[in-house]
Amino acid sequence: MVPAMDAAALEVFLETEFPQVSRDYAVEAVGPMTALVRFRVAARHLRPGGTVSGPSIFALADVAMYLALLAQIGPKALAVTTNCSIDFMRKPAAGVDLLAEARILKLGRVLAVGDVLIRSEGEEQVVARAGLTYSIPPR
Amino acid sequence: MVPAMDAAALEVFLETEFPQVSRDYAVEAVGPMTALVRFRVAARHLRPGGTVSGPSIFALADVAMYLALLAQIGPKALAVTTNCSIDFMRKPAAGVDLLAEARILKLGRVLAVGDVLIRSEGEEQVVARAGLTYSIPPR
Amino acid sequence: MVPAMDAAALEVFLETEFPQVSRDYAVEAVGPMTALVRFRVAARHLRPGGTVSGPSIFALADVAMYLALLAQIGPKALAVTTNCSIDFMRKPAAGVDLLAEARILKLGRVLAVGDVLIRSEGEEQVVARAGLTYSIPPR
Amino acid sequence: MVPAMDAAALEVFLETEFPQVSRDYAVEAVGPMTALVRFRVAARHLRPGGTVSGPSIFALADVAMYLALLAQIGPKALAVTTNCSIDFMRKPAAGVDLLAEARILKLGRVLAVGDVLIRSEGEEQVVARAGLTYSIPPR
Repeated sequence: MVPAMDAAALEVFLETEFPQVSRDYAVEAVGPMTALVRFRVAARHLRPGGTVSGPSIFALADVAMYLALLAQIGPKALAVTTNCSIDFMRKPAAGVDLLAEARILKLGRVLAVGDVLIRSEGEEQVVARAGLTYSIPPR
Repeated sequence: MVPAMDAAALEVFLETEFPQVSRDYAVEAVGPMTALVRFRVAARHLRPGGTVSGPSIFALADVAMYLALLAQIGPKALAVTTNCSIDFMRKPAAGVDLLAEARILKLGRVLAVGDVLIRSEGEEQVVARAGLTYSIPPR
Repeated sequence: MVPAMDAAALEVFLETEFPQVSRDYAVEAVGPMTALVRFRVAARHLRPGGTVSGPSIFALADVAMYLALLAQIGPKALAVTTNCSIDFMRKPAAGVDLLAEARILKLGRVLAVGDVLIRSEGEEQVVARAGLTYSIPPR
Repeated sequence: MVPAMDAAALEVFLETEFPQVSRDYAVEAVGPMTALVRFRVAARHLRPGGTVSGPSIFALADVAMYLALLAQIGPKALAVTTNCSIDFMRKPAAGVDLLAEARILKLGRVLAVGDVLIRSEGEEQVVARAGLTYSIPPR
């Protein structure tokens, strides 16, 4: 299946639909059923001690999966997150961006299911892992 | 067990430790193993269509459980979220605050587990439900 | 909404459709959007040390939610579990049954979401808590 | 890190500690932080319609992660599952075994976190995906 949107199209979509957060993210790559998304960590995302806030990491997982899904089904569908189970495993490395690898494991008629691995740029170890389900509205 | 911190003490803690978000939340009530937390929904928390963003709802669940836990164990412990499984069920009602009811189901030596129900103020129906685990560092 | 099936009807359904496990469970009560299900713990459900096996506890959560759902929508629908997030908190008490309280928090057109609390009979403390999502097939 | 137990040692452990279920599983391979486990699907694991029961799939995910963990830390530790979030995506193929790929993403002092992909033998598509957390008791 050829993706319905490429990385550039996804970035335009983000800027248009989510202008308040689009500068936080960059779409690094899009493949069949996958997306790689950069989170530009800035001071406003940090908690005391310099760690990235949990909601910021959750938001990254959610955005990465959403973009992987839009890449497949195109920008018209208004998919909504119905479930996310996220494990926070390690404090991110200081002063570097986070990278989220999303993959879709099931793209059904009404549900899409996938998971996301989040790492600090340049690191092997996983900062967080999330499984997400999206509900796809009828066309 | 008498709570180690009451609602007023928790609000002071929030203002001191999380000044960037403390104005978003109010501690309505604290009981044994429970906390009721108000999220003052503002324009910056909304997504296109007027719905409250997923990360804002996740943050509310996380804060409510964290405050329920601090109420029990006091402000010194640096508990961290290790897992959250959240179900998003309904779009919140427009123009009203969200209320999160957190309860701790297990307060162990190294882990605390609980769940949170989130509703729009004045509504019976549940907007989101989350189960959360916190890791409690050794004293 | 009047339940579509009462406790007796659910037990007949279990015996007919799931004869291999129906003797393990008893439907104690059914209410609007709720079900209380007994798990008759037997030697075959135990692990070394006398604890009830994780899969047996998972199965109880799944059955309890399924029965709460069937009580609402009737026996014809072939609902399937799409997600379960379960926290195991305490070892069950020895030599007593487990009781599972299931409640449906959302009963939508295609998805039903609820949670289940599992306790040893006669105990206050929670052994396990699960959030479950069921997919409801089109009629 | 050299695994503390290889596939043969894990099978002996299963037979000794879990004789009632050990014949259901075979350890296909063990690597650094990974395990591949076969589930020998038999009539007793099936539900009406010929599908493998949810609790059997849950049990497979739990066993696969447990074996991946024991391979790392050795047979003495009595690790217990504290959380499992599982997505059921597709009905397994009829008449073939299931294969579970477990990988540990974090092996900490008190918690181990990983995930498991389950497929029907010979199939690409994922039947179920689970994220699991184990609590590791103090030595």
